[in-house]
Amino acid sequence: MSTERVKAGIIMGSKSDLHIMQDAADIFKEFGVEFEMTVVSAHRTPERMFEYAKNAASRGLKVIIAGAGGAAHLPGMVASITTLPVIGVPVKSSNSIDGWDSILSILQMPNGIPVATVALNAAKNAGLLAVQILATADDSLGLKMQAYKDELRKKVEESAAELEG
Amino acid sequence: MSTERVKAGIIMGSKSDLHIMQDAADIFKEFGVEFEMTVVSAHRTPERMFEYAKNAASRGLKVIIAGAGGAAHLPGMVASITTLPVIGVPVKSSNSIDGWDSILSILQMPNGIPVATVALNAAKNAGLLAVQILATADDSLGLKMQAYKDELRKKVEESAAELEG
Amino acid sequence: MSTERVKAGIIMGSKSDLHIMQDAADIFKEFGVEFEMTVVSAHRTPERMFEYAKNAASRGLKVIIAGAGGAAHLPGMVASITTLPVIGVPVKSSNSIDGWDSILSILQMPNGIPVATVALNAAKNAGLLAVQILATADDSLGLKMQAYKDELRKKVEESAAELEG
Amino acid sequence: MSTERVKAGIIMGSKSDLHIMQDAADIFKEFGVEFEMTVVSAHRTPERMFEYAKNAASRGLKVIIAGAGGAAHLPGMVASITTLPVIGVPVKSSNSIDGWDSILSILQMPNGIPVATVALNAAKNAGLLAVQILATADDSLGLKMQAYKDELRKKVEESAAELEG
Amino acid sequence: MSTERVKAGIIMGSKSDLHIMQDAADIFKEFGVEFEMTVVSAHRTPERMFEYAKNAASRGLKVIIAGAGGAAHLPGMVASITTLPVIGVPVKSSNSIDGWDSILSILQMPNGIPVATVALNAAKNAGLLAVQILATADDSLGLKMQAYKDELRKKVEESAAELEG
Amino acid sequence: MSTERVKAGIIMGSKSDLHIMQDAADIFKEFGVEFEMTVVSAHRTPERMFEYAKNAASRGLKVIIAGAGGAAHLPGMVASITTLPVIGVPVKSSNSIDGWDSILSILQMPNGIPVATVALNAAKNAGLLAVQILATADDSLGLKMQAYKDELRKKVEESAAELEG
Amino acid sequence: MSTERVKAGIIMGSKSDLHIMQDAADIFKEFGVEFEMTVVSAHRTPERMFEYAKNAASRGLKVIIAGAGGAAHLPGMVASITTLPVIGVPVKSSNSIDGWDSILSILQMPNGIPVATVALNAAKNAGLLAVQILATADDSLGLKMQAYKDELRKKVEESAAELEG
Amino acid sequence: MSTERVKAGIIMGSKSDLHIMQDAADIFKEFGVEFEMTVVSAHRTPERMFEYAKNAASRGLKVIIAGAGGAAHLPGMVASITTLPVIGVPVKSSNSIDGWDSILSILQMPNGIPVATVALNAAKNAGLLAVQILATADDSLGLKMQAYKDELRKKVEESAAELEG
Repeated sequence: MSTERVKAGIIMGSKSDLHIMQDAADIFKEFGVEFEMTVVSAHRTPERMFEYAKNAASRGLKVIIAGAGGAAHLPGMVASITTLPVIGVPVKSSNSIDGWDSILSILQMPNGIPVATVALNAAKNAGLLAVQILATADDSLGLKMQAYKDELRKKVEESAAELEG
Repeated sequence: MSTERVKAGIIMGSKSDLHIMQDAADIFKEFGVEFEMTVVSAHRTPERMFEYAKNAASRGLKVIIAGAGGAAHLPGMVASITTLPVIGVPVKSSNSIDGWDSILSILQMPNGIPVATVALNAAKNAGLLAVQILATADDSLGLKMQAYKDELRKKVEESAAELEG
Repeated sequence: MSTERVKAGIIMGSKSDLHIMQDAADIFKEFGVEFEMTVVSAHRTPERMFEYAKNAASRGLKVIIAGAGGAAHLPGMVASITTLPVIGVPVKSSNSIDGWDSILSILQMPNGIPVATVALNAAKNAGLLAVQILATADDSLGLKMQAYKDELRKKVEESAAELEG
Repeated sequence: MSTERVKAGIIMGSKSDLHIMQDAADIFKEFGVEFEMTVVSAHRTPERMFEYAKNAASRGLKVIIAGAGGAAHLPGMVASITTLPVIGVPVKSSNSIDGWDSILSILQMPNGIPVATVALNAAKNAGLLAVQILATADDSLGLKMQAYKDELRKKVEESAAELEG
Repeated sequence: MSTERVKAGIIMGSKSDLHIMQDAADIFKEFGVEFEMTVVSAHRTPERMFEYAKNAASRGLKVIIAGAGGAAHLPGMVASITTLPVIGVPVKSSNSIDGWDSILSILQMPNGIPVATVALNAAKNAGLLAVQILATADDSLGLKMQAYKDELRKKVEESAAELEG
Repeated sequence: MSTERVKAGIIMGSKSDLHIMQDAADIFKEFGVEFEMTVVSAHRTPERMFEYAKNAASRGLKVIIAGAGGAAHLPGMVASITTLPVIGVPVKSSNSIDGWDSILSILQMPNGIPVATVALNAAKNAGLLAVQILATADDSLGLKMQAYKDELRKKVEESAAELEG
Repeated sequence: MSTERVKAGIIMGSKSDLHIMQDAADIFKEFGVEFEMTVVSAHRTPERMFEYAKNAASRGLKVIIAGAGGAAHLPGMVASITTLPVIGVPVKSSNSIDGWDSILSILQMPNGIPVATVALNAAKNAGLLAVQILATADDSLGLKMQAYKDELRKKVEESAAELEG
Repeated sequence: MSTERVKAGIIMGSKSDLHIMQDAADIFKEFGVEFEMTVVSAHRTPERMFEYAKNAASRGLKVIIAGAGGAAHLPGMVASITTLPVIGVPVKSSNSIDGWDSILSILQMPNGIPVATVALNAAKNAGLLAVQILATADDSLGLKMQAYKDELRKKVEESAAELEG
């Protein structure tokens, strides 16, 4: 893991999830948020997962994005160990049943241990949600978020104009 | 809506959701977070919803919890208008199909507009997630969260001791 | 949006839904119904959506067809703002879970705000339903609808004859 | 069936669906829409169903609401025979699997034969949608619909005021 | 429809279902059962469907196989009109939601009107079931069925021997 | 098992299914079909199940109705051993997940081994389907079935008259 | 946890699962298997869970039964840490969506880390499976299991005799 | 079937499942477990299935892995006949509805007859679970399992290092 102090961590259960989770990294780059990204498997590296979650806050992280598929325990287990907000990305991995297992095993956390779940494969939205969370303590990120939304709006207006001819 | 400046807003699509959403309010009381709570219906009061979301940040809110059931559009629509983080609580209301409609219409937001979704009826977890988000800018909340988790742990240990006899 | 007075509006949450929604436009052309078609996103252009729905009736529209996928809020939100009948087309978009999210978030509207939902991706049926609605005030459309159904019948009879050899 | 000329027909597959379908009748009474209501079973009285659908338009009906549960064929079969708009109400009857069979067998009509499907058990919304459809040819119904929506809004505002204390 | 007297009828809602329903015809050929096969659409040719079902018994048919997809009303509607046993084949057609709609709208018939439903796309099993039904009055078919099952067994034993090497 | 020669067998996986399966017996009584009814568990009495299925045809049975819940293997296993038509009744037993497991494990039989599946808990329809099958070789049963359907029709007409007032 | 050396461990995520998990304990008593039973929460006591799983084999346990509901991570996380066979019992707890979340988050483990999943709430079967596993090294348990199955058979035969009268 | 005495049996309902079930065989080779593999169909070779299950224990087998798809009765039926632990692999075969039927008809066994179910298509995990079961009576297998898990951990650590760059 990174030794420089970064604000956001992106972890995934398997490197095969990278093509999905990269979207979160791209959002952080776009918004100028320092982040780290690595592989942490709840099932194959439980101690590594434990260490990661245990030390996340003291290492300076403010928010963690965790993506996993199938019986996806990574987001919930990290949330059980850290006090940081954890954003869960259900990944429609090859062993997932159309994503239902990924969603339910991330979303349906018991009382006391929330995971902020986003849509199936929606690592981009996980990144944006992390930015909104960091913006709580950083007004400049809030302004960038407003600009981002303005840009979304403009793109729709352009495609509307194009369609209307 | 409250005229005092509060940090967290709790809104729900119908007053019949109050018995669920009250759990979020109770968490805010327990953690000493100032909050407001009201009814805002995306479908029956769309302009009120628009105003609420539009002014939330300038009124000082840092995070919004929105609960709704069935075709639950409130969390996603508020998220589309504000730049604040929005936490969605899928409510298993009387007109919901076992909660599936509530979950999917809150969770499956398109790229660009995240909603931090928690488990079905999990307003308590929505409150805890909001506290974690506010803790990003308030270390004392992080300490309280650690104490809260310690308390959860102790209760399990006690019930374990009781069961083991 | 069109400045000429048209009877039916077709809107979609994203231009990527056009290959589905075009079927509704084709029905309108076939039945000689003036229509307009554009992109209106509930989530990325909430104000545009508000304006569209608010002014639809006064601009002369009699019926609105709205297509969207995933957490599909467009049909329901438009229905919450206008008094016109709104036909919802659940689109099986790339971010949808086999269409279930699209269907449930359009169909399961609360009491007070109906959306006339058609089958998954069934923009053609949305067009036909709009024609049936317009026929309430225009007998000639009813006659055309009868002719359309006769044509459907004949095609089945032909394929039956072909199969029976 | 009624011999007076009425605008809207409400039919249901079984008298046991009456406690649901009555909501549509109540809406018609509230909006001053003449209607008839009877039992027509696609499966137990197929010829009666055929006659009902065949003669509906010539008897003066402008819209038909059909409710049924389980393998619910009534709305779709009526729609296959008449050119009138047909509104389908999926009923969560005792033999239904949580309503999924009712919904899918009404909603998923093939191209050419639309059914305007509303939410599970949502006969009230079926009534409101029928009013919106009739309003296409009757501006006074549109005004009443606006008043109805204003009333919905006021009730939410009142419950909001009550909750805010 | 065939004018010669045949024992079994195969109907399908659309000629696009032929590649599935052909399997039933092939079984009939293999067992020497005279049959007819045609297209009958409940939704696009309701009167033809009515005639087909009404006259099936008097034309000499002993069993009817009906295949359809999506909101699949054909098997149930035919069963409502005839007293013959009706076998329903849920077809996973292009407009079906993974076959769930086809299955539920064929299987979940109300009390009084059974449809003998087979697995998704299982027209071969529909053919075999029809043979079993016809065998009730024709012992030679029962013997052929036993031979068919013996053949199935032998094929498994061969592939087992092959696998065991 | 009965030593008298009867035409239809009703078996169920557990005596707790009797309150459902009794409906099939009642239909047989109503139509004058001799039958036997007993408990045969595929999982707890596999040899008994084997014997039952193996000897059913030689004992004179013409059709078997088998009801079971959860992972419901009884209908399919009996069908694998006998050449008689087997009607499967998915029972929503206490250990079933809303009946989905019962339905899928009875319906989704592989090619070669059909089970005529009826709706969840629909033992009455299983009885009626068995009568239709027996009617293939007994015209008097066909006449009784027509009378039964006439009775269904009359009851609907009466409840329609009652509702219309 | 017990200090005496026992062969089987039963753990559950919450004491509220005891009424389900007690069935496993009862099986162990019936078969004379020494066991221990306690509460271990993956989410509220992650370190306790870690310790339990880490030391299970060295403490002499041969098999672990773990029950949990909702996003049920306990069985899978224990399986990730120990090399012992882990049997997972999906519990239909109050916060579960009809048990689907419990089943999928226990069953759908990734390659490398199996959990032997039994049916929803089937702690009795978990106990029996544990006995079968222990029987691998203890022939007397195999004999008892055969006797248990004989008893199951006899009970079915008795209820069959009772039903046949 | 093999005449040499082997510890583990792998059976599958159809040779078309071999590409899935081979993974279990590969695990056995990797761990040095003697095994046999063959085709046994519950539905097409019920007597062969009966013989296989009946003689498994006396032939020296300690554990059986059974894979099947659709209405998958093989694992449960084998478990009903033998006292050995049976591991079920739900196969997403071509006739399966996204695997749901395979899973539910294997998992949801009634009280008294457990099947140790693994994830969809997870024959590798079935092999590993069998090794864990055999390790109950063979400490050397336990050590190999620990080494296997260490290897899994190292691979994740390597891919993490690679990703972190």
